[in-house]
Amino acid sequence: MSPSHFSMVELIGIKRDGGILSDEALQWIITSYVDKSIPDYQMSALLMAIFLNGMADEELAALTQAMLHSGDVLDCSTIPGKKVDKHSTGGVGDKVSIPLAPMVAACGVVIPMMSGRGLGHTGGTRDKLESIHGMKTAFTPDRFMELLAANNVVLGGQSATLVPADRLIYALRDASGTVPSVPLISSSIMSKKLAEDLDGLVLDVKVGSGAFMKTVDDARLLAETMVGIGASHGTTVVAYLTNMEQPLGHEVGNASEIRESIEVLRGDGPADLVEITYLLGREMLVLGGIAQTHDEAQALLVDAVASGKAFETFRTIVSSQGGDVAMIDDPGLLPVADHTHVLRAPTDGWVRRCDALEIGIASVRLGGGRETKEAAIDPSVGITVHAKIGDSVRAGDALATFTYAENEKLEAALGAVETAWQIGTTPVKNQPILLDEIR
Amino acid sequence: MSPSHFSMVELIGIKRDGGILSDEALQWIITSYVDKSIPDYQMSALLMAIFLNGMADEELAALTQAMLHSGDVLDCSTIPGKKVDKHSTGGVGDKVSIPLAPMVAACGVVIPMMSGRGLGHTGGTRDKLESIHGMKTAFTPDRFMELLAANNVVLGGQSATLVPADRLIYALRDASGTVPSVPLISSSIMSKKLAEDLDGLVLDVKVGSGAFMKTVDDARLLAETMVGIGASHGTTVVAYLTNMEQPLGHEVGNASEIRESIEVLRGDGPADLVEITYLLGREMLVLGGIAQTHDEAQALLVDAVASGKAFETFRTIVSSQGGDVAMIDDPGLLPVADHTHVLRAPTDGWVRRCDALEIGIASVRLGGGRETKEAAIDPSVGITVHAKIGDSVRAGDALATFTYAENEKLEAALGAVETAWQIGTTPVKNQPILLDEIR
Repeated sequence: MSPSHFSMVELIGIKRDGGILSDEALQWIITSYVDKSIPDYQMSALLMAIFLNGMADEELAALTQAMLHSGDVLDCSTIPGKKVDKHSTGGVGDKVSIPLAPMVAACGVVIPMMSGRGLGHTGGTRDKLESIHGMKTAFTPDRFMELLAANNVVLGGQSATLVPADRLIYALRDASGTVPSVPLISSSIMSKKLAEDLDGLVLDVKVGSGAFMKTVDDARLLAETMVGIGASHGTTVVAYLTNMEQPLGHEVGNASEIRESIEVLRGDGPADLVEITYLLGREMLVLGGIAQTHDEAQALLVDAVASGKAFETFRTIVSSQGGDVAMIDDPGLLPVADHTHVLRAPTDGWVRRCDALEIGIASVRLGGGRETKEAAIDPSVGITVHAKIGDSVRAGDALATFTYAENEKLEAALGAVETAWQIGTTPVKNQPILLDEIR
Repeated sequence: MSPSHFSMVELIGIKRDGGILSDEALQWIITSYVDKSIPDYQMSALLMAIFLNGMADEELAALTQAMLHSGDVLDCSTIPGKKVDKHSTGGVGDKVSIPLAPMVAACGVVIPMMSGRGLGHTGGTRDKLESIHGMKTAFTPDRFMELLAANNVVLGGQSATLVPADRLIYALRDASGTVPSVPLISSSIMSKKLAEDLDGLVLDVKVGSGAFMKTVDDARLLAETMVGIGASHGTTVVAYLTNMEQPLGHEVGNASEIRESIEVLRGDGPADLVEITYLLGREMLVLGGIAQTHDEAQALLVDAVASGKAFETFRTIVSSQGGDVAMIDDPGLLPVADHTHVLRAPTDGWVRRCDALEIGIASVRLGGGRETKEAAIDPSVGITVHAKIGDSVRAGDALATFTYAENEKLEAALGAVETAWQIGTTPVKNQPILLDEIR
């Protein structure tokens, strides 16, 4: 079939019957859907057929290419150095991007990072950054490139003119029951990331209660699929599968996660958060051609933090993007809600369960996340997790502190965490952070 | 979930993941789709999920009930006697309803028949009837009931107010690649037939090249599904699987099929057409409580034809529905196009293939069918099939006569039948008519 002879009903039929759509057919579908000559009811039928019948590797590569080229694409060729980004599939307390980007940029890698907002029980980097007074994350592609040329790093949001196909398809998936599909998730993520004109990409694929992927097998399939899409595009992608049974670090919120990120940039911070940040950072330095080995990369990262270069880079980012640097110089100036409530251990024992999903839902109910795309968030509320899996506690010890603004919202949040913590009578191992890596 | 709490995205997710939708959920979906509170793009995603994951018997029963009650339903209770209808899944040269309805009605069964128009390569009873000058097939439910009360039989079309859900869903299936699905086909057919308030239904499920179902196994599944829906509704349904490798009878067209139908009513007609007509008629008489056995039913049918009662009933139908009875008293008055072309056997031998699909397509190209729902048809054109499977022919014998109005259309039609006939060098068995029955 030549492009002018494509019939969407026939193409739906091919996918429905387990066939393979050609590159030209997929290109035609994306172009025609973006220009509205394919109606939503045909696209949603195709999405369901893809959901249920899957896609071959070559289809996925072609779909991602077609989506990637559905709008503007960044051209980073005028900026010297390799461009590397990191993407997380989303978790609770996952503020890794915020210390990671300045640390890695301070070592010389160019980072054109475009992040999302929180949705559902997971937080979003943009929302967290915007708890710094004045901080902007929405830029035109031209302004984004100016910032990147000036600082070698931008912590921005997805531009409206990049990958419009993904925005349209994502909204339709959300409304047509076709969200949790490996080919549709991976083409959505990879089209957006590859539109950043990257040399390398590190993926943090979260696994567990608080993650989209509940099992290592599901996460591995998603990771392998995205690594494969990267390879077909000529971009090196390395994926780490990391634990999301419990929140990452201690802080779940927005301003509070900026505070914890600053701790990491200052050479402090909770062990699990630090471990993932350096893990991903080492890979980014190798992909960025700054280090030959992970050991060499580790030394560079340690030096960037110890010397203050990493924190200085974060200051530059914040000031360039309109943020109030006083708030990061003194994190005590970041917004904090007036009231706190401490949740206490009912018995002595060892923490067996500290459920990321339930704590994430509680954070949303406090006002720290959004249940619909239009909802506003309150940057000043949050949950500080004191007791994590493997910790020993005595009855009456604090499990978590809820920082809140309204009693009703506290009550709703507490309702979400009734079974979040479980305390057993025998010692429990700490949770491993790194579960697998795919390259 | 209570009806007010149904979420279409969640219901799509249930079906997508292989779950079972409740009666209440299916009722809510149909009501909400008809009142347009469920958008097409959600319905098409659900239809694709049904296509690929199927439906359990109880879901299919509930879906059919919900569709059936989406608009007006006939109430035949004021008319004495059992109401029985026949439905064919569609074929080429399938004019069985036209002699069958008057024959069975002449014996005392009430027949509220609603038929469709031709689409694709298959003909439609309504189109054929309308080749009789003045003949009407579109009635309001009130007028339909008046005619039924007066004559015990109506040869009408589907009323616009009956089963609106099917009309909407069928149009969406056509545009979303979800037509060839056993649950969707069977709920579509059965919701329309059960809305006629029937005591019994005989299904003629066509199998072979010219049919929707190409294999006996596929046809049996469809037949069993529809018999099951009937049982769950309390209506006895008997399904016959009949051969549609080659056209039924000799005539493929519209006016020409009326002529061949009149031959059957006059006690003549080709053997295969007569065999199916009596086969289905016997069952309708038993379902209608007029005969106890098929033998008894056969005797009644033979008498109805021999006595002229069957033909007289057809005359009554035609005159009551506005048709010109002179045209059926003298079928030579029915429209006939001016030109004929004879397709001849190239060699001596036995006919191995006389392909219903290709001959059906040729008839459409002559102008006797419609490729889109809006197209007009020419009742005067058609194909008379002289040589059928098993017949012996000599080189130069007529295989078929094309009655046509325009040279271009003849050329197009001949292009469709280039491989329709195959003549072999060894004898070939006649095709069996009845392949299976499901009750």
